[in-house]
Amino acid sequence: MRTPKQARAAFRSGTVASTSGWANGYIQANLIALPKEHAFDMLLFAQRNPKPCPLLDVTDPGSWRTGLAHADLRTDLPRYRVWRNGTVVAEPTSVEEHWRPDLVTFLIGCSFTFEAALTEAGIPLRHVEAGTTVPMYRTNRTCRPAGSLSGPLVVSMRPIPTDLVATAVQVSAQVHTAHGAPTHIGAPESLGVTLNSPDYGDPVEIHDGDIPVFWACGVTPQAALAASRIPFAITHAPGHMLITDIWEPVYRLGS
Amino acid sequence: MRTPKQARAAFRSGTVASTSGWANGYIQANLIALPKEHAFDMLLFAQRNPKPCPLLDVTDPGSWRTGLAHADLRTDLPRYRVWRNGTVVAEPTSVEEHWRPDLVTFLIGCSFTFEAALTEAGIPLRHVEAGTTVPMYRTNRTCRPAGSLSGPLVVSMRPIPTDLVATAVQVSAQVHTAHGAPTHIGAPESLGVTLNSPDYGDPVEIHDGDIPVFWACGVTPQAALAASRIPFAITHAPGHMLITDIWEPVYRLGS
Repeated sequence: MRTPKQARAAFRSGTVASTSGWANGYIQANLIALPKEHAFDMLLFAQRNPKPCPLLDVTDPGSWRTGLAHADLRTDLPRYRVWRNGTVVAEPTSVEEHWRPDLVTFLIGCSFTFEAALTEAGIPLRHVEAGTTVPMYRTNRTCRPAGSLSGPLVVSMRPIPTDLVATAVQVSAQVHTAHGAPTHIGAPESLGVTLNSPDYGDPVEIHDGDIPVFWACGVTPQAALAASRIPFAITHAPGHMLITDIWEPVYRLGS
Repeated sequence: MRTPKQARAAFRSGTVASTSGWANGYIQANLIALPKEHAFDMLLFAQRNPKPCPLLDVTDPGSWRTGLAHADLRTDLPRYRVWRNGTVVAEPTSVEEHWRPDLVTFLIGCSFTFEAALTEAGIPLRHVEAGTTVPMYRTNRTCRPAGSLSGPLVVSMRPIPTDLVATAVQVSAQVHTAHGAPTHIGAPESLGVTLNSPDYGDPVEIHDGDIPVFWACGVTPQAALAASRIPFAITHAPGHMLITDIWEPVYRLGS
């Protein structure tokens, strides 16, 4: 297994891959960088929607450094998205040329962080077995708006064998630096979701005896960028996260 | 015991008292209201200092309503403080005449919230026995700054019998809507604190066999207001909190 440092070096030199299963046990993070004038709304959006947006760090304007990792936030993720007026205009592997001195960067917990704990608990992860990106869906649930930002709740979905669903709830609830316990279990139609048509990531096979389990997802702020037509932003590409230097189990205490 | 509604009605009609021990079991909150231009810094300060500043709600500018309680935030606390340039200029029992349409109000978890749980666990609370306000101290530890806001960590102190300290840690750690586990146990001198000279609240008797246990305190943002000479703010008076309508035990799940 690669260390976080090795993983980030690989991404910096051009490797592109979903970070699920990389550097297992280390905290991973969603990235969203916005001009200072929209930063208050984003911070408030995160405070009002803590399940999809558990904040791990917020930088000072212009800084590409974080206390979570010895990383350059402009180069060390495998893929980024550049947004204008709510539309993705580029998906580069580095955003050095797009960086601005007024950007405030938000690092938000990610469900990949608890996947190591789920695996340890004997829970199969179908998208990891298949080597694909976890499926993510825009739901019919709306987030609490904050100033200029509003949009739907986005969820990630993992099919879990019925006899392991309770374990999955308990294990993920313990990981405070990710999205906590699932938001919904079963009944995708009640969320307005069609399982084989994810909005982000790849469809995943549901084995006999599995039921779909949905967790709030850190792509939710990207859906809000789109719905709210924010003039400029930089984010990670869904599934292509920042891998931090922080070993997740030490964070379960002290919170 | 009075309900939260009865307690707030009493405060609205002029009763002034520390809210410790009132409406036991309901979440209590620190209040700090700042003009919009300083709200981002306050929100970031809370995000960077989650032990003293666990955010429960943030209002839209000018609003005196919160989802936490059927309350008027301008009248329903027993006592307030009005701040100019980092100095307290008034301590009224209502702030209707000081309210401004650009004020963003932050409601922050309070250690009074876990006092009911400590009592249930058989832990004596010396300041409640004495009918005084819990002692609070500015320490020699600095918070992580955020823009224009910086200042020391403020702690509250409860003397706890040595054989109950571990229980107090475990019980308070479970209350996610307050300050969590203690930040320091024993050795007040290491915090630069003199026990019988609190900076806020009243000194409290330490019985034989008690040791001082320190929790991060929601008065910390007030110390930052003072240290940072913020032009205008309204806060609660230390110990005189908002009593919400939310029954704390239901919040231990779902976080």
